[in-house]
This record gives sequence, structure tokens and C-alpha cells, in this order.
Amino acid sequence: MIETRLEARPDTPPTALPASMAAVVLDDYDDGELTLETRQIPTPGPGQVLVRMAASPINPSDLMFLRGLYGFRRPLPTIPGFEAAGTVVAAGPGLLTRLWLGRRVACVVQEEDGCWADYFCAPILRCLPVPRKVTDEQAATMLINPFTAWALVDTASRSGAKAIVQNAAGSALGSMIRKLAARRGIDVVDVVRRAEQAEELRRDGAHYVVVSSDHNFEDALAEACRTLKVSLAFDAVAGDMTNALAAAMQPGSRVLVYGGLSVEDPVVTVESLLFRGQRVEGFWLGGWFQKNTLRAFLRAWPDVVRYIDTDLATPIRATYPLSQAANAVADYEAQMSGGKILLNPD
Amino acid sequence: MIETRLEARPDTPPTALPASMAAVVLDDYDDGELTLETRQIPTPGPGQVLVRMAASPINPSDLMFLRGLYGFRRPLPTIPGFEAAGTVVAAGPGLLTRLWLGRRVACVVQEEDGCWADYFCAPILRCLPVPRKVTDEQAATMLINPFTAWALVDTASRSGAKAIVQNAAGSALGSMIRKLAARRGIDVVDVVRRAEQAEELRRDGAHYVVVSSDHNFEDALAEACRTLKVSLAFDAVAGDMTNALAAAMQPGSRVLVYGGLSVEDPVVTVESLLFRGQRVEGFWLGGWFQKNTLRAFLRAWPDVVRYIDTDLATPIRATYPLSQAANAVADYEAQMSGGKILLNPD
Repeated sequence: MIETRLEARPDTPPTALPASMAAVVLDDYDDGELTLETRQIPTPGPGQVLVRMAASPINPSDLMFLRGLYGFRRPLPTIPGFEAAGTVVAAGPGLLTRLWLGRRVACVVQEEDGCWADYFCAPILRCLPVPRKVTDEQAATMLINPFTAWALVDTASRSGAKAIVQNAAGSALGSMIRKLAARRGIDVVDVVRRAEQAEELRRDGAHYVVVSSDHNFEDALAEACRTLKVSLAFDAVAGDMTNALAAAMQPGSRVLVYGGLSVEDPVVTVESLLFRGQRVEGFWLGGWFQKNTLRAFLRAWPDVVRYIDTDLATPIRATYPLSQAANAVADYEAQMSGGKILLNPD
Repeated sequence: MIETRLEARPDTPPTALPASMAAVVLDDYDDGELTLETRQIPTPGPGQVLVRMAASPINPSDLMFLRGLYGFRRPLPTIPGFEAAGTVVAAGPGLLTRLWLGRRVACVVQEEDGCWADYFCAPILRCLPVPRKVTDEQAATMLINPFTAWALVDTASRSGAKAIVQNAAGSALGSMIRKLAARRGIDVVDVVRRAEQAEELRRDGAHYVVVSSDHNFEDALAEACRTLKVSLAFDAVAGDMTNALAAAMQPGSRVLVYGGLSVEDPVVTVESLLFRGQRVEGFWLGGWFQKNTLRAFLRAWPDVVRYIDTDLATPIRATYPLSQAANAVADYEAQMSGGKILLNPD
């Protein structure tokens, strides 16, 4: 039996670990200000492991959380950060936790404190062991975006869709969705904001790209949707874009809102709902994990590992130390396309 | 074999009919103005019957149609009116049409011209023979409201709902929904605008009434929905009310918008869709008829006939001749509760 370091001395940090750690702390949802504090290294509870953080991305969901707009709020002060890669350095009580000791893992952390710290605790069922070929940087963005793309495309596939339409198609996630969809024989109409993005996407193999700033956007979108008989939309933007997607699709179609990049409520019309029989639903990876954890992980993970350096690769635009987390967030807010921003331990 | 009058002389109106008729005519969707014109009596096409109109209600769907906001527009000028009762006086070619000759019928008319005229044509499959016990006034409102209520409650029942919430609960339709739901063992939370309406509803047997103008409306609605575990809402109002219903219900619940009395788009939040897993759909009787006509008629009709003078009774507030149609519409727009307004031939 493997004795874990923490179980040997449950009330104090194990000697192999430093006495304390640096952590990014949020004090107030109103201003979203971040400070670097010195904290005790946490003790993993039942079913949890302690992970030494290697890299952690800033995702749109983190921005929503910092503003208090995410699906839940934690009591303050709290450490933000929903996704990270690292190495398991201690295991809490439980059957599986010790098996992960010493392994590199990719984690999603939704409870208590997050992962923008030198160390964090994560439930073992949200930590996946990372193959040797995957770098820390890749592993850090291996769950939220790839699993969102995988789950959305899986939803399209199960609903029998032969084609979908998506906005924010120039994002890393948009690219993942398009490529995974192609592997399942699903055509994608991509909506981007600028003509240059359309060019980029076409060079990257996109076939049907529509530019939302064009004067004939609605017509072009409707024509593309009609040609491909699109009846399912993935909407990361909300606001008027939700209605634009619905209006372009045929009666009986469905908009799946999975983000709110416009920071506006989705616009839906009585006409769409009543006379065109359309509906609006949401997709949230957090809820999907809660409903699907193990089964979904087992189905999605092989695909994610297989395509992590091709279809599911995430370009990294910049890397900041934890002590610069506030600047990193500001940088990301100012430019959310063109690659992810990662946080590293100092 | 019954020889119909029109089949005997297909190119001219039968001698038993007058040479012309009075008809309410809409010329322009922008101003919605109505004029009375003299028209030729129409000739029923294949599968149609000619009906001498006895009474026709003004429904919210008529108001939407007059403004060009309904699910379809007809080429102008056109005769409005979606629902009426009358007597079949001539039959077009077809297997069934002659069987209805001389019968009193309740009709829904969605194509070509409507029924605000002395005579109108209707497809035989949208005309139901009216039992002797039913008056013309009752028959005139026997389809749209009762079938909407029946279809909505049937939807709730099939989805396994034990309780629903509805707004505009003080309307004739709201009352029908509540009473049909009770017969199927489904509890109803009723939302009304004013305290007096709440009193009326309670006297009429409503158990859970919430007043939307109360200062604690949201809390009261949420508590009622929590107590009864409501996960399905019927929304006739749209606008902010859609969001109020969603916010009051538990995660995973559904809002079925079936009207837009607020003349505003339904408000849906990213939070509801993503983090609470809720969805927004529409219900439109026109679409339901298109999908369900015969089967649905056969299932719903016995219930409608059985309860037409109790649960499905429609109070009539005023009756206007066709020549006063514009005044009748203005009267209805000014006060949509407290009973229907009917049009009669002059």
C-alpha cells in the first residue's frame, strides 16, 4: 500500500512541501481586483489530490467568475482559476487518489478555492493523467475548451445535425468545434466579426465563412444556412447575435447558447418561438461535467489526447507569473482572440 | 348522392345565396385600418365549404395579424378573422365536404380570406360540427382558446409535469388552462396583474395566485414554484415576464411562450440558459394544427364539447355588427380582459 505524505501527517504540510505558497486572491466581485497573498498549502480532502501548479489559462469563464456573473459565487476571499495542469504531490483519503501520486494531470477545479496558486486541491474525478507527449502548456488548456468543443459537437451529432452554424468562429474554441465537426461529417457555417478573420479561417480550411460586419450579413448567413439546411446554432456571443442565428435558420431549429461574450442577454423574438417553432437552450460545461463526469471523460478523453497537438491545439499568446495575474487578466480582456494567456508560478 | 348547389352551377353563386356580401377588409398592415366592403360571395375550392357566418370573435392573434406581426401575412387587401361559427351552405369538390352541408360548424380559417364577412370559405378539416346544445356565441369561441388550453395542458401532461405556472391567468384562456389542468391532476400557479383579479380567481377555485404588481412578487412566485416543484411555465406575455417565470423555477425547467401580450421580445438571460439549464420554446396553435390536425381534433374535440359550458365557457363582453368592426377592435384593444368581443353579420 502506498502511504501518502499527507496521510502520514494529516495536520501539517508534508516536509517535502514548502511551508506556504503564493496565491492570487479575489476579495470583491464588484471590482474584480486581484492581489497576491501568501497562504498555507491546502490539505486535500476525501477524494481529492494536491497538485503543484505548472500552468493555468485565463478563460472567459474566469472573467465571468471575477465579475460575480458565473454560475456560482464562492464566499470571499477566494482563489480564482478553473483549469490548470500540474503534478500530483499529495493524495487525500480515497480509493483512487493515491494512484495519481507523482503524475502530471490536467484539472478542472470548480469547488472551494481555484488553481491560480502554487498548489491547489482538486477532486480526483476532475484530474486526468497527461500523456508524456503533451507539454504543460498544452495540458493546461486540455479540458475546458477541448471538452466544450467535444461536447457541443457530440450534441450536434446525437441530434442528427448534418450542419451547424457558430459565431466567435475565430476563437480557439471555434476552431476546435469546426475541426471536430468535420471529423464527424458535420458542415460548419462560421460567423466572424472581421474580414481578415474570414481569410484566416479559409486558409485554415473553413468552407463557409460569413462576416458579421458586412452590410449583407443577414442575407449571406441565411443563404449559407439554407444551402446547408442548418438547424442547430452554437452561440458564444448572445445579445442580438442569438436572434441573427435564429432568423437565419429554418423553422424548428435550435440555438444553443454557450457563452455571453457580448455581455448582453440573448435576444429571442416571439416570432421565432411561436411562428417559426424555434427554441433557445444553454450549454454549460460545468453542468455537463456534473451530469456526465466519468462516462463523458471516458468517451471524450481519447479524442482529446489524440488531437491535442492538431485539431485541439491552443495557441498561447503570452505567459505571466502569478504575481502579474491582474495584468494578465487585463491583457486578456483587451484582446481575447489570437491565443490564450497562461499563468505560471513565479 | 347529395348534389351540392355549387357543384350544380360551379361558375356562379347558387341562387339560394344573395349576389354579394359585406366583408371587413384590411388594406394596410401599417395602420391596421378596417373598412366594410361589398364583395362577391366566394366559391369553395376542393376540400372546402362555404359557411354563412353567425358570430366571430376578436382574438389576440387577430390583433397581431392586423399589425402584420402574425406568423404569416396575406397579400392585401384581405379579409381578417381566424375563427367563427356558422352554417355550411355550399360544398366544394371532395369526399367529405357534402356531409357538412346544412350543419352548424365551428371553424378556424388560416388561408386566403378570413371570416369577418357574411360568408367565408373554410377547409373541411378545420370545421367541426357543433352539437345542438352549443349556442352560436359559444361555438364562435370553441376552437382557438379551448384548443390552445387543451394542447398546452396536454403538453404539460405528456411531459410528466405535476404543476405548472402561467401568467395572464385572469384571461378566459388562463381560466381554461387552470381548469383543464385540474382535471388532469396538475397544480397551477396563477400570475395576475392586480389584486382584484387574484380575488376573482380564488373565488373561482384557484389555489396559488401571485400578483405581479406586488412588491414581493419575485419572492412569492419563487416560493410557490418551489413548493409545487414547478418546472414548466406557460407565458402569454413575454418581455420581462419570461425571465420572471424562468427565475422563479428550478434549474432545468422550461418556459413555453404562447403569446406576446406585452408586445416585447421575451427576456432570457445567459444565466438561466447556461447555469440553470433552462430553455425557452414557443407554442403556436397554427403550427400545432398543421402538425396534428385530425388526430388532435379527434382527441381534443370530445373534451371541448363536454366542457364548453363549464370549464371552457367564454364570457362575452360585447357584440358588434361587421360594419362596426373597427370600433370593436378598438374596444378590445382597450380592454382585453373581462370577456370576448364578437362580430355578427349586420
